[in-house]
Amino acid sequence: MGVPTSIISVVGNDFTPSYFEMLNKYQVKTSGIQIEKNSKTFFWKGKYHTDLNTRDTLVTDLNALANFQPIIDEEDKESPFLMLGNLHPKIQMQVIEQLPKRPKLVVLDTMNYWMEHTWKELMEVLKKVDVITINDSEARQLSKEYSLVKAARKIQEMGVKYVVIKKGEHGALLFHKKKVFFAPALPLEDVFDPTGAGDTFAGGFIGYLANTQDISFENMKRALVFGSNLASFCVEKFGIERLESVTQEELQKRLFQFKQLTLFDIELKNSNKNL
Amino acid sequence: MGVPTSIISVVGNDFTPSYFEMLNKYQVKTSGIQIEKNSKTFFWKGKYHTDLNTRDTLVTDLNALANFQPIIDEEDKESPFLMLGNLHPKIQMQVIEQLPKRPKLVVLDTMNYWMEHTWKELMEVLKKVDVITINDSEARQLSKEYSLVKAARKIQEMGVKYVVIKKGEHGALLFHKKKVFFAPALPLEDVFDPTGAGDTFAGGFIGYLANTQDISFENMKRALVFGSNLASFCVEKFGIERLESVTQEELQKRLFQFKQLTLFDIELKNSNKNL
Repeated sequence: MGVPTSIISVVGNDFTPSYFEMLNKYQVKTSGIQIEKNSKTFFWKGKYHTDLNTRDTLVTDLNALANFQPIIDEEDKESPFLMLGNLHPKIQMQVIEQLPKRPKLVVLDTMNYWMEHTWKELMEVLKKVDVITINDSEARQLSKEYSLVKAARKIQEMGVKYVVIKKGEHGALLFHKKKVFFAPALPLEDVFDPTGAGDTFAGGFIGYLANTQDISFENMKRALVFGSNLASFCVEKFGIERLESVTQEELQKRLFQFKQLTLFDIELKNSNKNL
Repeated sequence: MGVPTSIISVVGNDFTPSYFEMLNKYQVKTSGIQIEKNSKTFFWKGKYHTDLNTRDTLVTDLNALANFQPIIDEEDKESPFLMLGNLHPKIQMQVIEQLPKRPKLVVLDTMNYWMEHTWKELMEVLKKVDVITINDSEARQLSKEYSLVKAARKIQEMGVKYVVIKKGEHGALLFHKKKVFFAPALPLEDVFDPTGAGDTFAGGFIGYLANTQDISFENMKRALVFGSNLASFCVEKFGIERLESVTQEELQKRLFQFKQLTLFDIELKNSNKNL
């Protein structure tokens, strides 16, 4: 298991060497992380509502991110899998433009803020990506459609081939042409902090695809479940605490629970290929 | 298909013979429906929020329901399956008390209003039922637990054996001891009016169990999917319009879609019985 990974980002002077060591421990290359000595790292503070599925942002300090210019190492320019984190679509585009050829798969994460403030740039970058990951209200905002079926269709018309709609504790949907797949979220005994669950999900999703080198719809279904599985651990503790301790055995055990969760053997009558 | 069904209820002078004819057409016995000549039928009016998953009540006129005293026909007293609709727990109890012996299965529907105003009576009737159907916020309110896993456990401690948590467009969960099952809702092209979807779901759920005469957990899973399937048609048109036109073929076709929706074949490593 494990696939070579590089992070392209920027941090401030408060990002201690221990974080780099932790990433390197998992064979994540960190030479693409710029350090702004006169700045602090991006900071977000929010308050979750009782349902833990919605939240209010209290503080967003861009800090080092404010003037971020992503620079891709020569040896990373051939990476077959690219995950564009939730940032200004112009910065996402800058990454794509540095690559000599189109990666095998480009996944883009975005949010309502960019839909409201940088619509044009977002539309431009959407034409260059294969998969978008957004939550249900963002899918509705982006498409101006209430039905997620219609929303996913409209978003595909914007140039994206696969639409992943994250619904937090309600699971995630994957749409492609006329196909739809749903990965449930596992009902958990304790949810401590949902921050980062969406990122964990996206990382698990593309990590699974990169590791298996298979971008078929069938394999994306597995990647969706793999991402949901990882995210279910993220929320059990604060930050990346739980993710740092999770074992392959725990992942396998929970994967079994994911399978059991939706398994039923109801009989189909007169089933034929027209169904 | 089809199982003998009786409705025990009360209506007013605005409930025209055509409604009785419609019910009788489907072999539903209506002699248990009392007619209050000087009153109107229960009336509810509400406004749905844009997400169609939450709503505000604008008008609730109890009308004929205000003084409802359910009376069970002699021949219905041996019914093996009892569905207690969402009403004052005292009225639900009156139905149970008229039965000479406990039915094979009692399903109870309730809502936040009864938790807030008739807590004691609700706790009494919960001891007499097998299955409760409530939505996720009601499950949290009833149990005072945020985690649905913990909520379902607490509700089982109140005397209910099976807890069905309805989440509207996000599907439904079934809890029993350490087991949990999730039936997704099918992402629909058009959702016109969600009113009655929960009742359709509950009717489909108990109807499936009554028809198959099997109340095992495995069969309840199928019943949950059957109920979700029926409810998915209910929301496509106003009132019972779509349900009146739905065919067995359409039900089978959508059942196939339900199966496809969550099907994935991810491999379990080192799978053993301890998992």
